[in-house]
Amino acid sequence: MTTPVLSLVGYSNSGKTTLMEKLVSGLTAKGLRIATIKHSHHQPEMDRPGKDSWRHKQAGASTSLLVGPEKMLMVSDVDESLNPQLLTERLFADYDLVLVEGYASVPGPKIEVLRSERSQTLRCTSDELIAVATDMADLDLAVPLLDLNDTTAIIDFILQWKSRAGEGI
Amino acid sequence: MTTPVLSLVGYSNSGKTTLMEKLVSGLTAKGLRIATIKHSHHQPEMDRPGKDSWRHKQAGASTSLLVGPEKMLMVSDVDESLNPQLLTERLFADYDLVLVEGYASVPGPKIEVLRSERSQTLRCTSDELIAVATDMADLDLAVPLLDLNDTTAIIDFILQWKSRAGEGI
Repeated sequence: MTTPVLSLVGYSNSGKTTLMEKLVSGLTAKGLRIATIKHSHHQPEMDRPGKDSWRHKQAGASTSLLVGPEKMLMVSDVDESLNPQLLTERLFADYDLVLVEGYASVPGPKIEVLRSERSQTLRCTSDELIAVATDMADLDLAVPLLDLNDTTAIIDFILQWKSRAGEGI
Repeated sequence: MTTPVLSLVGYSNSGKTTLMEKLVSGLTAKGLRIATIKHSHHQPEMDRPGKDSWRHKQAGASTSLLVGPEKMLMVSDVDESLNPQLLTERLFADYDLVLVEGYASVPGPKIEVLRSERSQTLRCTSDELIAVATDMADLDLAVPLLDLNDTTAIIDFILQWKSRAGEGI
Protein backbone atom coordinates (compact mmCIF):
# COMPACT_ATOMS: atom_id res chain seq x y z
CA MET A 1 0.00 0.00 0.00
CA THR A 2 1.24 3.46 -0.84
CA THR A 3 2.05 5.62 2.18
CA PRO A 4 -0.56 8.39 2.47
CA VAL A 5 0.76 11.94 2.17
CA LEU A 6 -1.12 14.85 3.77
CA SER A 7 -0.07 18.49 3.58
CA LEU A 8 -0.68 21.23 6.11
CA VAL A 9 -0.93 24.53 4.31
CA GLY A 10 -1.80 28.05 5.38
CA TYR A 11 -0.41 31.56 5.53
CA SER A 12 2.88 32.12 7.33
CA ASN A 13 2.26 32.49 11.07
CA SER A 14 -1.04 30.64 10.83
CA GLY A 15 0.29 28.03 13.25
CA LYS A 16 1.24 25.23 10.85
CA THR A 17 4.35 24.10 12.72
CA THR A 18 2.59 24.13 16.09
CA LEU A 19 -0.21 21.99 14.67
CA MET A 20 2.35 19.71 12.99
CA GLU A 21 3.99 19.13 16.38
CA LYS A 22 0.67 18.25 18.00
CA LEU A 23 -0.34 15.92 15.17
CA VAL A 24 3.03 14.14 15.02
CA SER A 25 3.01 13.73 18.77
CA GLY A 26 -0.58 12.46 18.93
CA LEU A 27 -0.29 10.13 15.94
CA THR A 28 3.04 8.74 17.17
CA ALA A 29 1.39 8.07 20.54
CA LYS A 30 -1.18 5.97 18.65
CA GLY A 31 1.63 3.83 17.29
CA LEU A 32 1.95 5.30 13.80
CA ARG A 33 5.34 5.66 12.18
CA ILE A 34 5.44 9.21 10.89
CA ALA A 35 7.75 11.06 8.53
CA THR A 36 7.52 14.79 7.98
CA ILE A 37 8.54 16.88 5.00
CA LYS A 38 8.96 20.62 5.31
CA HIS A 39 9.48 22.84 2.33
CA SER A 40 11.59 25.91 2.93
CA HIS A 41 12.77 28.76 0.78
CA HIS A 42 15.87 28.95 2.96
CA GLN A 43 18.79 26.58 2.63
CA PRO A 44 18.76 24.09 5.51
CA GLU A 45 21.50 24.28 8.11
CA MET A 46 24.24 22.07 6.80
CA ASP A 47 26.35 19.77 8.85
CA ARG A 48 29.20 21.72 10.40
CA PRO A 49 31.98 22.77 7.99
CA GLY A 50 35.05 20.57 8.37
CA LYS A 51 33.21 17.54 9.71
CA ASP A 52 33.74 14.35 7.71
CA SER A 53 30.30 14.09 6.16
CA TRP A 54 30.46 17.79 5.21
CA ARG A 55 33.80 17.06 3.53
CA HIS A 56 32.24 14.16 1.57
CA LYS A 57 29.43 16.43 0.38
CA GLN A 58 31.80 19.28 -0.49
CA ALA A 59 33.92 16.87 -2.51
CA GLY A 60 30.93 16.34 -4.81
CA ALA A 61 28.86 13.48 -3.41
CA SER A 62 25.18 13.86 -4.35
CA THR A 63 24.30 12.55 -0.91
CA SER A 64 26.23 12.26 2.31
CA LEU A 65 24.80 10.11 5.09
CA LEU A 66 26.21 10.21 8.62
CA VAL A 67 25.06 7.33 10.82
CA GLY A 68 25.43 7.80 14.57
CA PRO A 69 24.34 5.63 17.50
CA GLU A 70 20.69 6.71 17.47
CA LYS A 71 20.21 9.24 14.71
CA MET A 72 21.35 9.53 11.16
CA LEU A 73 21.69 12.71 9.19
CA MET A 74 21.53 12.89 5.42
CA VAL A 75 22.37 15.84 3.22
CA SER A 76 21.38 15.53 -0.44
CA ASP A 77 21.20 17.63 -3.53
CA VAL A 78 17.62 18.57 -4.27
CA ASP A 79 16.07 17.27 -7.43
CA GLU A 80 13.39 19.85 -8.20
CA SER A 81 11.14 17.20 -9.71
CA LEU A 82 10.85 15.43 -6.36
CA ASN A 83 7.55 16.58 -4.92
CA PRO A 84 6.29 15.16 -1.59
CA GLN A 85 4.58 12.21 -3.31
CA LEU A 86 7.73 11.17 -5.16
CA LEU A 87 9.93 11.77 -2.10
CA THR A 88 7.57 9.53 -0.15
CA GLU A 89 7.72 6.75 -2.74
CA ARG A 90 11.49 6.90 -2.67
CA LEU A 91 12.17 7.40 1.02
CA PHE A 92 9.10 6.57 3.09
CA ALA A 93 7.53 3.48 1.52
CA ASP A 94 7.38 1.75 4.92
CA TYR A 95 5.89 4.63 6.92
CA ASP A 96 2.27 4.88 8.05
CA LEU A 97 1.81 8.53 7.16
CA VAL A 98 3.81 11.45 5.80
CA LEU A 99 2.83 14.89 7.06
CA VAL A 100 3.96 17.76 4.87
CA GLU A 101 4.36 21.41 5.85
CA GLY A 102 4.37 23.80 2.93
CA TYR A 103 4.28 22.79 -0.74
CA ALA A 104 0.98 24.70 -0.99
CA SER A 105 1.16 24.79 -4.79
CA VAL A 106 1.79 21.06 -5.27
CA PRO A 107 -1.35 18.98 -5.92
CA GLY A 108 -2.40 16.53 -3.21
CA PRO A 109 -4.65 16.27 -0.15
CA LYS A 110 -4.33 19.26 2.17
CA ILE A 111 -5.61 20.66 5.43
CA GLU A 112 -5.44 24.44 5.60
CA VAL A 113 -4.67 26.08 8.92
CA LEU A 114 -6.73 29.27 9.16
CA ARG A 115 -6.25 31.29 12.30
CA SER A 116 -8.46 34.37 12.62
CA GLU A 117 -5.70 36.56 13.97
CA ARG A 118 -3.65 35.90 10.84
CA SER A 119 -6.29 35.78 8.10
CA GLN A 120 -10.05 35.50 7.68
CA THR A 121 -9.90 33.97 4.21
CA LEU A 122 -8.48 30.78 2.78
CA ARG A 123 -5.17 30.66 0.98
CA CYS A 124 -6.05 27.52 -1.02
CA THR A 125 -9.12 26.93 -3.13
CA SER A 126 -11.51 24.66 -1.27
CA ASP A 127 -11.50 21.85 -3.86
CA GLU A 128 -7.89 21.11 -2.89
CA LEU A 129 -8.71 20.79 0.80
CA ILE A 130 -9.94 17.81 2.73
CA ALA A 131 -10.57 20.09 5.75
CA VAL A 132 -9.89 23.49 7.28
CA ALA A 133 -8.51 23.68 10.81
CA THR A 134 -9.63 26.98 12.22
CA ASP A 135 -10.51 28.91 15.37
CA MET A 136 -13.48 30.51 13.59
CA ALA A 137 -16.85 28.89 14.15
CA ASP A 138 -18.96 30.71 11.62
CA LEU A 139 -17.22 29.97 8.35
CA ASP A 140 -19.40 28.96 5.43
CA LEU A 141 -17.20 26.58 3.46
CA ALA A 142 -17.79 23.50 1.33
CA VAL A 143 -15.15 21.49 3.26
CA PRO A 144 -15.25 20.03 6.79
CA LEU A 145 -14.28 22.50 9.52
CA LEU A 146 -12.06 21.26 12.34
CA ASP A 147 -11.44 23.06 15.62
CA LEU A 148 -7.82 24.21 15.44
CA ASN A 149 -7.55 23.82 19.22
CA ASP A 150 -9.00 20.31 19.34
CA THR A 151 -6.02 18.18 18.33
CA THR A 152 -7.83 14.95 19.18
CA ALA A 153 -10.62 15.73 16.73
CA ILE A 154 -8.12 16.64 14.00
CA ILE A 155 -6.22 13.40 14.59
CA ASP A 156 -9.45 11.37 14.43
CA PHE A 157 -10.33 13.09 11.16
CA ILE A 158 -6.88 12.33 9.73
CA LEU A 159 -7.10 8.67 10.77
CA GLN A 160 -10.49 8.33 9.09
CA TRP A 161 -9.16 10.03 5.97
CA LYS A 162 -6.10 7.76 6.09
CA SER A 163 -8.20 4.59 6.25
CA ARG A 164 -10.32 5.80 3.30
CA ALA A 165 -7.13 6.76 1.41
CA GLY A 166 -5.79 3.27 2.15
CA GLU A 167 -8.87 1.68 0.62
CA GLY A 168 -8.81 3.94 -2.40
CA ILE A 169 -5.16 3.36 -3.21
CA MET B 1 21.48 -3.46 -11.21
CA THR B 2 22.30 -3.21 -7.55
CA THR B 3 24.37 -0.16 -6.62
CA PRO B 4 27.91 -1.25 -5.68
CA VAL B 5 28.98 -0.49 -2.11
CA LEU B 6 32.67 -0.12 -1.26
CA SER B 7 34.05 0.60 2.21
CA LEU B 8 37.22 2.45 3.12
CA VAL B 9 38.54 1.09 6.38
CA GLY B 10 41.70 1.68 8.39
CA TYR B 11 42.92 2.86 11.76
CA SER B 12 41.85 6.28 12.97
CA ASN B 13 44.13 8.95 11.50
CA SER B 14 45.14 6.68 8.64
CA GLY B 15 43.76 9.22 6.18
CA LYS B 16 40.39 7.66 5.31
CA THR B 17 38.46 10.93 5.06
CA THR B 18 41.18 12.60 2.98
CA LEU B 19 41.15 9.66 0.56
CA MET B 20 37.32 9.68 0.54
CA GLU B 21 37.39 13.34 -0.53
CA LYS B 22 39.81 12.61 -3.36
CA LEU B 23 37.85 9.58 -4.57
CA VAL B 24 34.48 11.33 -4.42
CA SER B 25 35.90 14.31 -6.25
CA GLY B 26 37.63 12.22 -8.93
CA LEU B 27 34.72 9.83 -9.49
CA THR B 28 32.21 12.70 -9.60
CA ALA B 29 34.43 14.38 -12.21
CA LYS B 30 34.06 11.21 -14.29
CA GLY B 31 30.29 11.63 -14.21
CA LEU B 32 29.40 9.11 -11.51
CA ARG B 33 26.61 9.84 -9.07
CA ILE B 34 28.10 9.10 -5.66
CA ALA B 35 26.58 8.70 -2.22
CA THR B 36 28.71 8.38 0.89
CA ILE B 37 27.93 6.72 4.20
CA LYS B 38 30.01 7.48 7.26
CA HIS B 39 29.64 5.54 10.47
CA SER B 40 30.31 7.48 13.62
CA HIS B 41 30.26 6.65 17.29
CA HIS B 42 29.25 10.24 17.97
CA GLN B 43 25.74 11.53 17.49
CA PRO B 44 25.57 13.66 14.34
CA GLU B 45 25.02 17.38 14.64
CA MET B 46 21.28 17.83 14.65
CA ASP B 47 19.41 20.55 12.94
CA ARG B 48 19.35 23.63 15.13
CA PRO B 49 17.03 23.40 18.19
CA GLY B 50 13.85 25.37 17.63
CA LYS B 51 13.88 25.13 13.85
CA ASP B 52 10.74 23.65 12.31
CA SER B 53 12.20 20.33 11.20
CA TRP B 54 13.84 19.92 14.60
CA ARG B 55 10.43 20.51 16.19
CA HIS B 56 8.88 17.83 13.93
CA LYS B 57 11.59 15.34 14.98
CA GLN B 58 11.28 16.25 18.66
CA ALA B 59 7.51 15.72 18.48
CA GLY B 60 8.20 12.07 17.63
CA ALA B 61 8.52 11.77 13.88
CA SER B 62 10.79 8.86 12.90
CA THR B 63 12.14 11.02 10.11
CA SER B 64 12.12 14.73 9.45
CA LEU B 65 13.05 15.97 5.99
CA LEU B 66 13.74 19.64 5.29
CA VAL B 67 13.79 20.54 1.59
CA GLY B 68 15.50 23.79 0.65
CA PRO B 69 16.22 25.34 -2.75
CA GLU B 70 19.32 23.22 -3.49
CA LYS B 71 19.91 20.92 -0.57
CA MET B 72 17.72 18.75 1.58
CA LEU B 73 18.52 17.58 5.07
CA MET B 74 17.03 14.47 6.63
CA VAL B 75 17.25 13.40 10.25
CA SER B 76 16.09 9.86 11.01
CA ASP B 77 16.07 7.40 13.84
CA VAL B 78 18.71 4.76 13.28
CA ASP B 79 17.56 1.21 12.78
CA GLU B 80 20.57 -0.81 13.98
CA SER B 81 19.80 -3.55 11.44
CA LEU B 82 20.46 -1.14 8.56
CA ASN B 83 24.02 -1.86 7.45
CA PRO B 84 25.49 -0.01 4.42
CA GLN B 85 24.14 -2.60 1.98
CA LEU B 86 20.57 -2.30 3.27
CA LEU B 87 20.81 1.50 3.53
CA THR B 88 21.94 1.51 -0.10
CA GLU B 89 19.04 -0.67 -1.24
CA ARG B 90 16.63 1.62 0.54
CA LEU B 91 18.11 5.02 -0.22
CA PHE B 92 20.60 4.82 -3.07
CA ALA B 93 19.12 2.43 -5.63
CA ASP B 94 19.71 4.94 -8.42
CA TYR B 95 23.30 5.86 -7.58
CA ASP B 96 26.39 4.65 -9.45
CA LEU B 97 28.47 3.91 -6.35
CA VAL B 98 28.24 4.20 -2.59
CA LEU B 99 31.51 4.87 -0.77
CA VAL B 100 31.48 3.96 2.91
CA GLU B 101 33.82 5.23 5.62
CA GLY B 102 33.96 3.06 8.70
CA TYR B 103 31.76 -0.02 9.30
CA ALA B 104 35.00 -2.05 9.45
CA SER B 105 33.24 -4.98 11.12
CA VAL B 106 30.38 -5.24 8.59
CA PRO B 107 31.00 -7.75 5.78
CA GLY B 108 31.44 -6.38 2.26
CA PRO B 109 34.16 -5.25 -0.14
CA LYS B 110 36.76 -2.99 1.47
CA ILE B 111 39.88 -1.03 0.74
CA GLU B 112 42.08 -0.54 3.77
CA VAL B 113 44.02 2.70 4.12
CA LEU B 114 47.40 1.88 5.65
CA ARG B 115 49.69 4.83 6.24
CA SER B 116 53.15 3.97 7.60
CA GLU B 117 53.20 6.86 10.04
CA ARG B 118 50.05 5.51 11.68
CA SER B 119 50.53 1.74 11.50
CA GLN B 120 52.70 -0.84 9.76
CA THR B 121 50.15 -3.66 9.97
CA LEU B 122 46.66 -4.17 8.59
CA ARG B 123 43.57 -3.66 10.72
CA CYS B 124 41.40 -6.02 8.61
CA THR B 125 42.19 -9.57 7.58
CA SER B 126 43.25 -9.63 3.97
CA ASP B 127 40.44 -11.90 2.75
CA GLU B 128 37.99 -9.04 3.37
CA LEU B 129 40.00 -6.59 1.30
CA ILE B 130 39.91 -5.95 -2.42
CA ALA B 131 43.01 -3.74 -2.07
CA VAL B 132 45.24 -1.88 0.36
CA ALA B 133 45.98 1.79 -0.28
CA THR B 134 49.34 2.47 1.31
CA ASP B 135 52.49 4.62 1.21
CA MET B 136 54.65 1.55 1.85
CA ALA B 137 56.20 -0.11 -1.20
CA ASP B 138 57.60 -3.25 0.35
CA LEU B 139 54.52 -4.89 1.81
CA ASP B 140 54.06 -8.59 1.20
CA LEU B 141 50.30 -9.05 1.07
CA ALA B 142 47.93 -11.31 -0.81
CA VAL B 143 45.82 -8.36 -2.02
CA PRO B 144 46.58 -5.69 -4.62
CA LEU B 145 48.60 -2.74 -3.29
CA LEU B 146 47.63 0.75 -4.41
CA ASP B 147 49.73 3.87 -3.99
CA LEU B 148 47.92 5.96 -1.36
CA ASN B 149 49.18 9.12 -3.08
CA ASP B 150 48.11 8.13 -6.59
CA THR B 151 44.40 8.93 -6.56
CA THR B 152 44.08 8.33 -10.31
CA ALA B 153 45.33 4.75 -9.94
CA ILE B 154 42.98 4.10 -7.01
CA ILE B 155 40.04 5.48 -9.00
CA ASP B 156 40.94 3.30 -12.01
CA PHE B 157 41.10 0.27 -9.71
CA ILE B 158 37.69 1.10 -8.22
CA LEU B 159 36.14 1.57 -11.66
CA GLN B 160 37.47 -1.81 -12.80
CA TRP B 161 36.18 -3.44 -9.60
CA LYS B 162 32.85 -1.68 -10.11
CA SER B 163 32.45 -2.98 -13.65
CA ARG B 164 33.28 -6.53 -12.45
CA ALA B 165 30.87 -6.11 -9.52
CA GLY B 166 28.24 -4.94 -11.99
CA GLU B 167 28.68 -8.08 -14.08
CA GLY B 168 28.63 -10.34 -11.06
CA ILE B 169 25.50 -8.90 -9.50
